[in-house]
Amino acid sequence: MKVWEQNIRRVTPYVPGEQPGERNIIKLNTNENPYPPAPGVVQAMRDFDADSLRRYPDPAVSELVHAIAEEYGLRDEQVFVGVGSDDVLAMSFLTFFNSDKPILFPDITYSFYDVWAEEFRIPYEEIPLDKEFQICVSDYERENGGIIFPNPNAPTGELMPLDVVEQMVAAHPDVVVIVDEAYIDFGGSSALPLIERYDNLLVVQTFSKSRSMAGMRIGYAMGQPQLIRYLNDVKYSFNSYTMNSLVIAMGAAAIRDRAYFEETRTRIIATRERVKRELREIGYRCGDSMSNFLFVTHDTVSMEELFRELKEQNIYVRHFDRDRIRNYLRISIGTDEEMDVLLAYLRKR
Amino acid sequence: MKVWEQNIRRVTPYVPGEQPGERNIIKLNTNENPYPPAPGVVQAMRDFDADSLRRYPDPAVSELVHAIAEEYGLRDEQVFVGVGSDDVLAMSFLTFFNSDKPILFPDITYSFYDVWAEEFRIPYEEIPLDKEFQICVSDYERENGGIIFPNPNAPTGELMPLDVVEQMVAAHPDVVVIVDEAYIDFGGSSALPLIERYDNLLVVQTFSKSRSMAGMRIGYAMGQPQLIRYLNDVKYSFNSYTMNSLVIAMGAAAIRDRAYFEETRTRIIATRERVKRELREIGYRCGDSMSNFLFVTHDTVSMEELFRELKEQNIYVRHFDRDRIRNYLRISIGTDEEMDVLLAYLRKR
Repeated sequence: MKVWEQNIRRVTPYVPGEQPGERNIIKLNTNENPYPPAPGVVQAMRDFDADSLRRYPDPAVSELVHAIAEEYGLRDEQVFVGVGSDDVLAMSFLTFFNSDKPILFPDITYSFYDVWAEEFRIPYEEIPLDKEFQICVSDYERENGGIIFPNPNAPTGELMPLDVVEQMVAAHPDVVVIVDEAYIDFGGSSALPLIERYDNLLVVQTFSKSRSMAGMRIGYAMGQPQLIRYLNDVKYSFNSYTMNSLVIAMGAAAIRDRAYFEETRTRIIATRERVKRELREIGYRCGDSMSNFLFVTHDTVSMEELFRELKEQNIYVRHFDRDRIRNYLRISIGTDEEMDVLLAYLRKR
Repeated sequence: MKVWEQNIRRVTPYVPGEQPGERNIIKLNTNENPYPPAPGVVQAMRDFDADSLRRYPDPAVSELVHAIAEEYGLRDEQVFVGVGSDDVLAMSFLTFFNSDKPILFPDITYSFYDVWAEEFRIPYEEIPLDKEFQICVSDYERENGGIIFPNPNAPTGELMPLDVVEQMVAAHPDVVVIVDEAYIDFGGSSALPLIERYDNLLVVQTFSKSRSMAGMRIGYAMGQPQLIRYLNDVKYSFNSYTMNSLVIAMGAAAIRDRAYFEETRTRIIATRERVKRELREIGYRCGDSMSNFLFVTHDTVSMEELFRELKEQNIYVRHFDRDRIRNYLRISIGTDEEMDVLLAYLRKR
């Protein structure tokens, strides 16, 4: 090993779900939205003045921040925007999880949390979900430097009711609690109303799922102005211009089209509920997911085997090779037609 | 102060140049390109399939990486792409500057270096430029955990000849040396050919200046595959999907249009040389900048005062309120017409 290699930061990177190149596959492996972005997004792209790209974008991302603030009834200084919620969460880890005490998150959860903790040398403890894959607030009653959990949780899809979220936030006034609401628009109640009463609460959401814009990379955090200011300070110290000019224009257009958003998320919820029902009818088990995916198992079928079988059928779903969830598949909700192909295969196998 | 605030990472953020909203100003304060992006960039935007935005982008950014590799005669695994060179540099600090020994960079240089060092808790020493604002390789002969400098340097515009760059890289085989070539296309010789011989050399460039795409946020690093792999590992641990699908398509189109690139950079160089000459004729002093800006002073005129005067004339330039350079202005090279307005004002004042 070269001497210079001794000072390299060594990490075990997060492994994203496969992005297969072929066109004729049914892609239910990365929780993408089966419907295209709102029509206004396309229009914003067509109308964009490309000459202006020679200029730096607005570092404050004002247009997009303002559109989000308006949609949620907030003031602009309560909103932070980043390059997908991964960027928002990475910046939040860096900003808020700066204690010597361990941060806490569930053992089965978004697999990026431990990656960020390792990368930034943040001590952490994984708190086991209970047998029904629920987060128990009482398990978090220990010394900690911060708490983060997704709601609904991933890959389980299990939703924590709003009053329980409030218990968690209220029980830890001395640390920042981050609720990662990537999937909240598919049936859950957001913790957003709580930010008025809890200055230690940060709510993170994304355009990647319910707004069909995974390809554009937009995530956002909402909280009291003081939290947002700290987050912006760290962001400006990392990269002042993270959001490009086109993203700003197209993202603002997306959030302004509430009707389209309501229509597509309602459709996904309806498909999910139907698929839940039909899967159970043919012997599969899944929790009451409130996200745009199902976490599916079966008492006698090997999910690892089924994963490979489905891939041969050009149906891509996600399998996690780790304890407690090895016999589960995470299946994103696609269009009704896509889900019918999946169900037909499961019925006849 | 709240208890949770005690664990906040406190930083002194980088302050970007002003981005005034008005249209009728002459903006020579952030080293943007006065010419629009290549025609192919606009076409790539018009042709883009917006429906595909519901999908995550290619995390490997293959199309853009490949276009860059092809342009520079490299293999794909020698190229890393990020959200502007700021993102590339931030990731590089995080990845390579992980020693207990201080990293070294010039005292007068890109003002983000010390911000990153502070943010990531990297010890650093600023090595003074000599009286002619040159970097002296011998001054760097001391224990260090890495070296970074821009070439040409900013805000001085001074170029280090390639053989001197090689001396620097060769003298420090045990650490990573980063040459930040944001402005190299305006007349300097890139250190790129050296990467074959020096596995500790990383060369960083950007689309923001010579390719007229500051608004799109594209930067890239070139080095031996091993360096690039380490950088990718850290990037994947931070945010797997940093480059959105549109950026990838438009960036690839930009780099493929070599003729337009040559035409615009040649035009900027010609304007710069003329302005240098004319400024000297009317009593201003400036070094032999090889960038798209001039670093200008005057023996009897206060540059701080001139800065304010110019702003009143709607001409924005950059003034840095810090020792050694307080009586200098950094003036970006605009179109010939813009520079004529500036020169006319300076002549008659």
